[in-house]
Amino acid sequence: MPKIVRFHETGSAEVLKLEDLPLSEPGEGEIRLKVEAIGLNRAEVMFRQGQYLESPQFPSRIGYEAAGIVDAVGLGVRGFRVGDRVSTIPSFSMGQYGVYGESAIVPATAVASYPDSLSPVEGTSIWMQYLTAFGALVEYGQIKKGDQVLITAASSSVGLAAIQITKAADALAIVTTRGENKKQQLLDAGADHVIVTDKENLVERVMAITTGHGTRIIFDPVAGPYLERLAEAAAPGGIIFEYGALSPEPTPFPLFPALGKGLSVRGYTLFEIVKDPEMLARGKQYIYEGLKSGTLKPLIDRTFPLDAIIEAHRHMESNQQIGKIVVRVSS
Amino acid sequence: MPKIVRFHETGSAEVLKLEDLPLSEPGEGEIRLKVEAIGLNRAEVMFRQGQYLESPQFPSRIGYEAAGIVDAVGLGVRGFRVGDRVSTIPSFSMGQYGVYGESAIVPATAVASYPDSLSPVEGTSIWMQYLTAFGALVEYGQIKKGDQVLITAASSSVGLAAIQITKAADALAIVTTRGENKKQQLLDAGADHVIVTDKENLVERVMAITTGHGTRIIFDPVAGPYLERLAEAAAPGGIIFEYGALSPEPTPFPLFPALGKGLSVRGYTLFEIVKDPEMLARGKQYIYEGLKSGTLKPLIDRTFPLDAIIEAHRHMESNQQIGKIVVRVSS
Repeated sequence: MPKIVRFHETGSAEVLKLEDLPLSEPGEGEIRLKVEAIGLNRAEVMFRQGQYLESPQFPSRIGYEAAGIVDAVGLGVRGFRVGDRVSTIPSFSMGQYGVYGESAIVPATAVASYPDSLSPVEGTSIWMQYLTAFGALVEYGQIKKGDQVLITAASSSVGLAAIQITKAADALAIVTTRGENKKQQLLDAGADHVIVTDKENLVERVMAITTGHGTRIIFDPVAGPYLERLAEAAAPGGIIFEYGALSPEPTPFPLFPALGKGLSVRGYTLFEIVKDPEMLARGKQYIYEGLKSGTLKPLIDRTFPLDAIIEAHRHMESNQQIGKIVVRVSS
Repeated sequence: MPKIVRFHETGSAEVLKLEDLPLSEPGEGEIRLKVEAIGLNRAEVMFRQGQYLESPQFPSRIGYEAAGIVDAVGLGVRGFRVGDRVSTIPSFSMGQYGVYGESAIVPATAVASYPDSLSPVEGTSIWMQYLTAFGALVEYGQIKKGDQVLITAASSSVGLAAIQITKAADALAIVTTRGENKKQQLLDAGADHVIVTDKENLVERVMAITTGHGTRIIFDPVAGPYLERLAEAAAPGGIIFEYGALSPEPTPFPLFPALGKGLSVRGYTLFEIVKDPEMLARGKQYIYEGLKSGTLKPLIDRTFPLDAIIEAHRHMESNQQIGKIVVRVSS
C-alpha cells in the first residue's frame, strides 16, 4: 500500500501523518501518478494551519505539486499514457487531490510534461512558482524592458521566479529580504538591488534607486500594515499585486497614496491563470521556452525524504530557505 | 473691483468670504474669464475643511468649475479669443486658480468651449462629472454592453454622470442611496436598480440582481469600512474604483475577497485623465458627442446667487441634493 500524507486536525507540522492507504484507481478524467518528488509550497503550511483560502475536511490530503510517472489513466483522458513523465499544475482542491505521498490521483487537466533536461526534483519546482509570477508580471503587469519591479519576500520560490522573469524582460529587479544573511545569495540569483528591511528604509532605498519615481510593479505575498510602505514606494499609475496573506495583521488600504498616484492594489492567485485555458497555454509556452533558453532555472534549497515531511514543513516555516524545498520519494 | 470668494482659515461654510479684489491680468499661457456660473464640487468642501489632496495656503481662493466669457488672454495663448464662451476643466491648483468669483484667471489648457445648446449653468456642470466617470468607466474600466456596474453615492453629479455613461454603453446601472427619498428620482435619472442602503442589504440585493455573479465595475467615492461590502458584491476579476475619501474612517483592504476573486481596488482621480493629452482629447470628444446625442445631459439640482455661497456649500453638505449645485454670477 502506498504511503500517503494526511492530517486529522489543523496545527503545527506534527499533525502531518504518513499513512498506509489502499491504492486508488483514477476516475473519469483523472490520472494516477507514481510520485518521484514533491515540491512544497507556503500554501500547504497555511492549509495545514487552517488559514488558507480552502479549509480542510478531515482526514485531509495535502499538497499541490508533484513530479512522477503516469501509472494509470482514467476514462476519457487524452494526451497522456502510462509511463509519461509529468508534473502537476496546482489547479485543484488540495483536500481532494493532495499529492503528498507515494501515489497521487489528479485531474488530467492539472498535469503537464516537463523538459527532459530537468530532474524530477526540478520538474516539481516549476509550475507554481513560474505560473504565479508569469500571471502577475507578464499577463496582468505587462512587464517590459526598462520597467522597475519591487519583489518582496524574494527568497521564496515564487520570489526567485519573479526575479528571473523580471531579468528575462530586461527590467530592474529590486528585492527585499529581512536579514543580511540572504543578501549575497539574492544578488547571485539575479537581483539588481537587495533591500535589507531589518536595517534599511524601504521607501528611501526604492526612491534612491529609481531617482524618486518609485516602481511600476510591486509583487508581494505578505500584505498587512507594510502595504502602506509599498504604496509609498510605488510609481504613479503603479500596480501592487497581493498574492498571499502571510502577515497575521489586518491590511489597511493605502487610500491617499492610491488617490494621489492612481495606484491599483490587486488581489491575485495562480488560480486565475490555470482556470483560463488561453492564459495557461501562454504561461506553459513561456515557461518551456524560458527553461530551454536558460533564462528560467529553478533554484532548489534542499531536499528531504518523504518520512521527514514534518521536518520539511518546519524548514519552510523557519524562513531560512532560499528557493524550493523538495521531498524526494523513493519506493 | 470683482467680488472673489476666499477663505483665511479652514472650517465650516462660514469661512468663505466674498471680497472685493483688484482685477488681475492673465500671465503667459493664462486666460481671464468673466464668470457667469460656478459649478460646485465635493472637492471644494473638503479643500475648505483642509481635508483635500491639496492643502490651502491662506488667504486661499477656491473652486474648480466655472463657465464664462473670455475677457483677457495672456501671452502665448492660442485657440481662444476675447468673447469666447468657455468653461473650465479641473486641472489646476484650486488655491492658485480657484474660480469662485466674478472674475477668474485659469491656465488656457484648462479651458474648453461647450455646446451652444447648453446654458452657462449647464456648461459649468459637465467637465468634472463626465470626465471623472468617463476615465474610470470607459478608459480604465472599458465598459461594454451587458456589463453590470455598481455606483455608490449615486445622487452626486459624478454618480449621475456614471449612470448616464453606463446606460450609454448598454450596461446595467445598479446604484445606491442611503434613504428612500431619492429612490424615484434615481430611477428617473436612468438607474436600473436602486438599493436603499439604510434598509436593504447591499450584497444580497446585488447578488439577487446579478444572479450571484456580482458587478464587474464598482465606482465609489466613499471608501472606509464599507469597501469590504463592495468587495463582497464584486464579480470575479472585478475592479473597484475609489475616487474619493468621503468616509472619515480608515479603509481596510478586503484581502480575502480580493485574493479569492482576483479583485483590483484602484485609487483614481480626474487628474490622471486631464494630465494625459490623449485621454483628455478622447474624453472631450466622448462628452461632446454624448451631449449632442442626448445620452449625456447634466442634471441641475439647484442654483444660488454668488452672495449665497455659504448657503450653497451648506446645501452640498446636507446631502439633500440630486445633481449639480450651481452658483449664478451676475454683475
